[in-house]
Amino acid sequence: MSTHYFEHPLNEKTRIYLRVEALLSQLDTSSQFKDELQHLLFFRSLFDLLEIFEQIQLKTELAKDIEKQRLAYKSWLNVDGVDQDTLHDILHEVDVVHSELMTAERFGQSLKEDRFLSTIRQRFNLPGGACCFDLPALHHWLHLPQDKISQDTSGWVGTLKPLANALKLWLKLARETGRFEQQVANAGFYQSDAEEANILRLNIPLNYGVYPMISGHKNRFAIKFIDFHTGQACSQDIKFELAVCS
Amino acid sequence: MSTHYFEHPLNEKTRIYLRVEALLSQLDTSSQFKDELQHLLFFRSLFDLLEIFEQIQLKTELAKDIEKQRLAYKSWLNVDGVDQDTLHDILHEVDVVHSELMTAERFGQSLKEDRFLSTIRQRFNLPGGACCFDLPALHHWLHLPQDKISQDTSGWVGTLKPLANALKLWLKLARETGRFEQQVANAGFYQSDAEEANILRLNIPLNYGVYPMISGHKNRFAIKFIDFHTGQACSQDIKFELAVCS
Repeated sequence: MSTHYFEHPLNEKTRIYLRVEALLSQLDTSSQFKDELQHLLFFRSLFDLLEIFEQIQLKTELAKDIEKQRLAYKSWLNVDGVDQDTLHDILHEVDVVHSELMTAERFGQSLKEDRFLSTIRQRFNLPGGACCFDLPALHHWLHLPQDKISQDTSGWVGTLKPLANALKLWLKLARETGRFEQQVANAGFYQSDAEEANILRLNIPLNYGVYPMISGHKNRFAIKFIDFHTGQACSQDIKFELAVCS
Repeated sequence: MSTHYFEHPLNEKTRIYLRVEALLSQLDTSSQFKDELQHLLFFRSLFDLLEIFEQIQLKTELAKDIEKQRLAYKSWLNVDGVDQDTLHDILHEVDVVHSELMTAERFGQSLKEDRFLSTIRQRFNLPGGACCFDLPALHHWLHLPQDKISQDTSGWVGTLKPLANALKLWLKLARETGRFEQQVANAGFYQSDAEEANILRLNIPLNYGVYPMISGHKNRFAIKFIDFHTGQACSQDIKFELAVCS
């Protein structure tokens, strides 16, 4: 039976992490410029990231969280029954991304200082503002030889590598802390306690025709299933899979 | 020699027309959802259009402009040397799009009343706000069978058909009023008078490495060429093609 995979962050910081992960993935996919519209997505994702970087001290937050993970994993060293080889591999990986993170520039710093990007950023968010008369420099750039375009895009994306690597590792380790278990939302409603949880992961069978509305925080959360067609709370029992990740 | 084709509107209304044309084209191209990211462009274009419809009475403006074109073409009826068959074809086409326009709803009306679109519109412009936890209804919709998705997208795009047809015709006839002529911008600068012009069209050889900055209005305009690499005004003579369209 096909399912709808769904993730929900239980705090504001994780919400930002997941948004940044999605934007980095869009940036990566669209950076090939393989059709005439992908540059729109590429620059939109890049400028959305810059906006997020201006709102929160992402580098500091992420470094703290990676450090927390390092301490948690270190506490398993020399514990019987724990695979020490795997543990050493993880700790090594954590060390590498953490030190890359610490030596990296403030996220987005060189992108903000890039003259070309600054020229086009301001008008890019106007409705329909990516026309040639609004952004003549961008349209000239799009006519440059392919290898020059690729060189520029790789350069911009490259400055975000320390962020991408650290975030990828943190989210991977966070997601691995939870195990999917079968649950039932009686009359479309489910609630539970959690312990310092960051992310809920759900697999919802598509045939119910519902999507989840989730509220809560790291220690308690509630899931209400909504009927897609009516937009109202669903009243039937929903069997779904849930993993609570910290 | 390859050139950079460039258009510039000489008044605010034409500026909106060209932006709407670009958005409709993006909407059309992305409506196939042929890769995993195209839905982002599709909805962004749709919501950008709705924002423009809320800012100006586009239907009234366009109907007036189409009417003006009809009167201009009518004045060529029974004039010697004017191909009357072609003229009748154009006048028929103008009549059709004008009457479609007059019977159409206010642009975007049914899109604004669509419950699903309203649900997702608000959060769509948040930086990175297209994640599943921000837009659960959208992510459910993306999992629906392909024919249901196509049916919805065609339905939404279909409501904009009278606008698309009228705008396409108006821009086609407007663009045809100008003929490309070779010009020289001495020391990167060109200015000229015009008569009730709406659009400038330029073909700029790419090898100069310049893009145009244009200022002006329907009766007078100036073109300054900017060196892409320095971002400064270019001081060499630039040979380019220009068509002034009314």
